[in-house]
Amino acid sequence: MYVVAASTTNWNGTVWWGWGAPDAHTPLAEDIRSLLEAAFGVTRRDTPPVGLDELRLPVASLSVEASEALAGVVGPGWVRDDAGSRIRHCRGRSTADLLRLRAGDALDAPDAVVLPADHDEVLAVLRVCARQRLAVVPFGGGTSVVGGLAPARDGFAGVVTLDLGRMDRLTAVDAQSQIVTCEPGLRGPALEAALAAHGFTLGHLPQSWEYASVGGFAATRSSGQASAGYGRFDSLVVGLRIATPAGTWELGRAPASAAGPDLRQLVLGSEGAFGVITQVRLRVRPVPETIRYEGWRLAGFTEGTALLRELAQRDLLPTVARLSDEVETAAGLAGGGVGADGGGCRLITGYEGRAGWVDTRRAAVAEVLGAAGGVPLGAQAGAEWVRGRFRGPYLRDALLDAGMFAETLETAGFWSTLPDLYARVRDALVAALAAERATEQAGEKAAGQAAAGRAGERAIDAAGGVPGLVMCHVSHVYPTGASLYFTVVSGQSGQSGQSGQSGDPVARWRRVKAAASRAITQTGGTITHHHAIGIDHQPWLTAEIGDLGVAVLRAVKHTLDPDGILNPGVLVPRAT
Amino acid sequence: MYVVAASTTNWNGTVWWGWGAPDAHTPLAEDIRSLLEAAFGVTRRDTPPVGLDELRLPVASLSVEASEALAGVVGPGWVRDDAGSRIRHCRGRSTADLLRLRAGDALDAPDAVVLPADHDEVLAVLRVCARQRLAVVPFGGGTSVVGGLAPARDGFAGVVTLDLGRMDRLTAVDAQSQIVTCEPGLRGPALEAALAAHGFTLGHLPQSWEYASVGGFAATRSSGQASAGYGRFDSLVVGLRIATPAGTWELGRAPASAAGPDLRQLVLGSEGAFGVITQVRLRVRPVPETIRYEGWRLAGFTEGTALLRELAQRDLLPTVARLSDEVETAAGLAGGGVGADGGGCRLITGYEGRAGWVDTRRAAVAEVLGAAGGVPLGAQAGAEWVRGRFRGPYLRDALLDAGMFAETLETAGFWSTLPDLYARVRDALVAALAAERATEQAGEKAAGQAAAGRAGERAIDAAGGVPGLVMCHVSHVYPTGASLYFTVVSGQSGQSGQSGQSGDPVARWRRVKAAASRAITQTGGTITHHHAIGIDHQPWLTAEIGDLGVAVLRAVKHTLDPDGILNPGVLVPRAT
Repeated sequence: MYVVAASTTNWNGTVWWGWGAPDAHTPLAEDIRSLLEAAFGVTRRDTPPVGLDELRLPVASLSVEASEALAGVVGPGWVRDDAGSRIRHCRGRSTADLLRLRAGDALDAPDAVVLPADHDEVLAVLRVCARQRLAVVPFGGGTSVVGGLAPARDGFAGVVTLDLGRMDRLTAVDAQSQIVTCEPGLRGPALEAALAAHGFTLGHLPQSWEYASVGGFAATRSSGQASAGYGRFDSLVVGLRIATPAGTWELGRAPASAAGPDLRQLVLGSEGAFGVITQVRLRVRPVPETIRYEGWRLAGFTEGTALLRELAQRDLLPTVARLSDEVETAAGLAGGGVGADGGGCRLITGYEGRAGWVDTRRAAVAEVLGAAGGVPLGAQAGAEWVRGRFRGPYLRDALLDAGMFAETLETAGFWSTLPDLYARVRDALVAALAAERATEQAGEKAAGQAAAGRAGERAIDAAGGVPGLVMCHVSHVYPTGASLYFTVVSGQSGQSGQSGQSGDPVARWRRVKAAASRAITQTGGTITHHHAIGIDHQPWLTAEIGDLGVAVLRAVKHTLDPDGILNPGVLVPRAT
Repeated sequence: MYVVAASTTNWNGTVWWGWGAPDAHTPLAEDIRSLLEAAFGVTRRDTPPVGLDELRLPVASLSVEASEALAGVVGPGWVRDDAGSRIRHCRGRSTADLLRLRAGDALDAPDAVVLPADHDEVLAVLRVCARQRLAVVPFGGGTSVVGGLAPARDGFAGVVTLDLGRMDRLTAVDAQSQIVTCEPGLRGPALEAALAAHGFTLGHLPQSWEYASVGGFAATRSSGQASAGYGRFDSLVVGLRIATPAGTWELGRAPASAAGPDLRQLVLGSEGAFGVITQVRLRVRPVPETIRYEGWRLAGFTEGTALLRELAQRDLLPTVARLSDEVETAAGLAGGGVGADGGGCRLITGYEGRAGWVDTRRAAVAEVLGAAGGVPLGAQAGAEWVRGRFRGPYLRDALLDAGMFAETLETAGFWSTLPDLYARVRDALVAALAAERATEQAGEKAAGQAAAGRAGERAIDAAGGVPGLVMCHVSHVYPTGASLYFTVVSGQSGQSGQSGQSGDPVARWRRVKAAASRAITQTGGTITHHHAIGIDHQPWLTAEIGDLGVAVLRAVKHTLDPDGILNPGVLVPRAT
C-alpha cells in the first residue's frame, strides 16, 4: 500500500515539512524556549520531522491511460508522480497539515501533479480528468491553512493536483487604467518585482506573500497586511477568466456595473470548486513615494480598538493598522521588544503613498492617538515589525521542532459586537486548552500508574503552568468593523499525527478550534475573514450563509462542474 | 377585453402618466421649446397624454380563489385590483413606458397589487402565488427604466405586483458600527429624514431619489450622484434578508469575509428574479459638517476626463464629480446657464464632510484643475446644479407634452477604452437618429404624395434641422475608469404607442438604442452602469457575462425560485 519516498526534490526551493526555504529557518531562541517550557510546565523535548524515508505515501493510483492522456495535453515532462512532487503537493500549510507530514503521514498526497502551460491546457486537462473520473486540485502557492488542498477521494479513480506554477507571467499592463493582467501562478514577490518595473505596486501582502499566488489570492478572498490602505484582494480584482469543465468564463468589463449580480464575486472565494482561475486583472497603484512605519503604545486593547474605529469612521486610517492585545504585546510578537516592557498594547501604523499624503495622514493619526494618551514608539518599532512581517510561519516551524504547538485562527465582526466576539473567542480558547490539559494530565497520571515510566518523555510539571498562550491582534479595519486574528501557542501533546488518540495534537487542536468556532458563530462573527472555508471551516458554513446559501453554491458548482471533479468536498459541502 | 378606467387615485401622490407629483410639473419654457423646434426642424405640436377614460386596461384575470388566498395573507384591504392601483403599477418610468401609457396602452398592468406588511407576509404571498401559478413583480418605487416591472405573462394565471410600500421603516440603528437596518419600501427622502434624526446620512442620491426605494437600490445596484464620495449602493450594503419561494435567506455577518463567494453580491442586482429583498443593512456616515458645491469650466471633454482620471488615481476625488461634454454644456443642462456661454465643458464638484476635509480636498482639486487651465465658476453654478439635480424626469414630461422625445442610456468602461467608448456610442446615436429621420422623411413624403395633408400635423421643415441632440456626462468616477451617461433629445415621431408602425417613437427609440448598445458591447463597455438589465438590456447580457454567466443565473434562480414565478423574463433570460 505504501511506497517509501527514498528521496525528494525540494520542490520550488521549499522544505517539505514546513514553511519556505531551508536556509530561512533558525531554531527557537534558547531564552524563548526556556520561557515557554517554564510557562507551559513542560520539560524539554525535541520533536523534529521524521526522515523522508519514514514518510507513508500511498502508491500512485493513476492509470496508464489517464497518465498518457494528461501527458498528451501538457507534455510528458509536466505530469509528475515522483515522491517529491507528490509530497510537496500533499495538503497545505496549516499546523495540522504540518504535524501530520512531520509525523510521516503523506496519505493525502495526489496521485500526480500536472503543470499546464496556459488556459487551453487547463481546459483540456479538465476534460481528461472528467473522462477519467479524476478529482482535480487547483494549486497556486500551496499555502492553504484550511484544508483547501486535500479534497475527498471517494468516488474518484485518483486525485490530480493542477499546479499553476508555469503560468506565472504578468501578461499586460494598462498604465492609463492602472490595470494589469496576471496569470494565476504568479507569486507575491515576483508579481511585485514585475509591477515595480512599470512603476506600480499591488500592495497585497498577506503573511503568506512569499509563496502564495495571484490565483490563490483570488480563490480565497485573501486580505493583506496593508488592507486598510490598498484594500482586500477582492476589491482589487477588476476581471477574471476561469477554466471550468463547462468551458471558459470571462468577467469584468468596467470598474462597476449594474448588469445583474456581480458574478466576479462568485468566482472570488470559490476555492477551486467552480473552476480554475487562469487570469486575473488587477487594479494597481503607483509605487509609493514615501513609506513610513512606526509603533505606538496604547493603554489597552479596548481603548485601541475604539481608536481604530474612530480612525476608520473618520476616514483617517493609515495604510497598515495593526493592534496587538496585551498578551501578544507582552509576548513581544507585536513588532519586536521595543517598548514592550511598557505594558499596554502595541499598535503598528504604516503609511505608504505620496509624501504629502503620508505627512498629512501621519499628523492626523498622531493627533487622534496622542489625544487618547498613546505613546509614540518611533520608527524602530515599525522597522522591527516590517522585518518580521513574514516570519510567523518560520517561527511556527521552530516551535514545532521544539515540542511546542502554534496555530492561528481569525474572524471579523461589526464594531458593536467586536468586544464580545473578542472576549468569547479568547475565553473559549483558554477554556478549551485548559480542558485539554486536564484530560491529558488525568490520562497521563492513569497511564503513569498503569505503566510507570512510559510518559517520562514529557512529564508534566506537577506545579502546572498555563495550558497555553492565547494572543490576538486586529489587522484589518473597516468603518463598520474589524478582523480579529488569534494565535495560540502551547506545549505539544502526545505523539504527532496519530489520529484518534486523545494525545494527538491534531485531534486536540480540532477540539480547541471547534470551541472557538462555536463562539464565533454564536456571537455572529464570520467563521473566516481571510483564510477561506476549505474543509476545516465547513461545519460552520451553513450557520453563516444558510441552507439556501449552501444550495446556491451547489447549484453554481453543478452548472460549472457537472461531474463534481473540482476540489470535491472543498468549500461546497457534498450532498449527504 | 378592456375595462375603461373611469377614475383613478393618484397613487402615492404621483401622476399616472409621468414622473412625480402633479404640482412639481411646469410646461417647457417657451424659449427652449422654440429653440428645440427650430433645431429639430419640427412645427409646434402638443402631445398630451390621453384621458384616463381612454386607457386600454385588460380585465383583471385573478381568480376569486387566488384573490381570497392573497387577502387571507395580507388582509382584504391590501389586495387591490382597482384601475388606479393597476395603472400606477403598469411598467416603470422609461420613456418608452411613458409613451405607451400616454398613448393609452396600459396592457402590461398587473391583475392585482398586493401590499404585505412584513417579511412573513411576503413569504406567504409567494407561497400563494406559486400555488396559483401567478407571476410576482416586486415593486419598490416603480422607477425602473429598463422594463424591470413588466414580466412575461405567458404560462401564468396572472400577474401580481408585490408593492413594498407598507414596509417602509428604519428598524434599527447601530450607531457604534454606523450600520442601519431598513425595510425595502423606504424611499430616498424618508430614509434620509429618518437617518438625520440619528445624525447620519446614506448619501445615496440617484436622480430617481425622490421616489426610488431602498429595496430597489439594492435590487438594481443603483449608483447615486455622489458615488465618488459615498460609494455605489452595493458598496454600502453590509447585510440583506430576502424572501424567496424556497424560504428566507439572510446574509452579512461582518464587514468582509472569506467564507466562500460573497453571496450578498448575488442578491444585489438580482432585480426581483431571485427573491424579494425584505431587509437591507447599510453603512451610513455622520451628517456632513460642511457642504460645498461649485462649477468649473474645462477646455473640453477629453481634457476633462483626463483630469477626472488624475483626481481618481491620486485619491483626490470630490464627493460629487460630474463632467458634461460640450453639447450638454452648451445645452445648459450641466448646471444652469452660468458660464455656459464660455464654451468648453462644465464640471460640477461637490464636497461633503468635515470642514477640514472639505477645505483640504477643495484646495487639492483646485490646484489640479487650475494647473490644467480650468476656470472656476464659483458656488452659483454648483447651487444651480444642486437645485436641478432631481429635475430631469420632470423636464422629460414637459418635453413629451411638447412633441419632443427625451431618453437616457449609460455605460462604463476602463480609462483606456473610455475615449473610444464615448466616440463610438455618440456616433452610433447620431447616425441612428439621422437614419430614423431619413426614413421618416421618405415615408412622410410618400404618404404626403399618396394622401396630401394627412401628415400636415407635423410637417417636417424642408430645410432639415438636426435629427436630435446627443449629450453626455461622466458622473461616476473610479481609479480604473468611469461611467458615461448619454441623453438624447429629439422631435417625437409618428403617433405614440402604436407599435409596429415605423413612425412609432417607441419602436424608433428601440432601434436607436440598439445601435448604441451594439457600440457599447463591441467597444467592451458594460451595457449598464446603474440602470440594471430588466428586459430592455437582455439582448446584450450574454455578451457581457457569457453563456456560463447566464447558465449560472438560471441555476441560482431555479434554486431559489423553482417555479419561476418571480419577475419571469426579467434579468434572467428564459430558456428558449
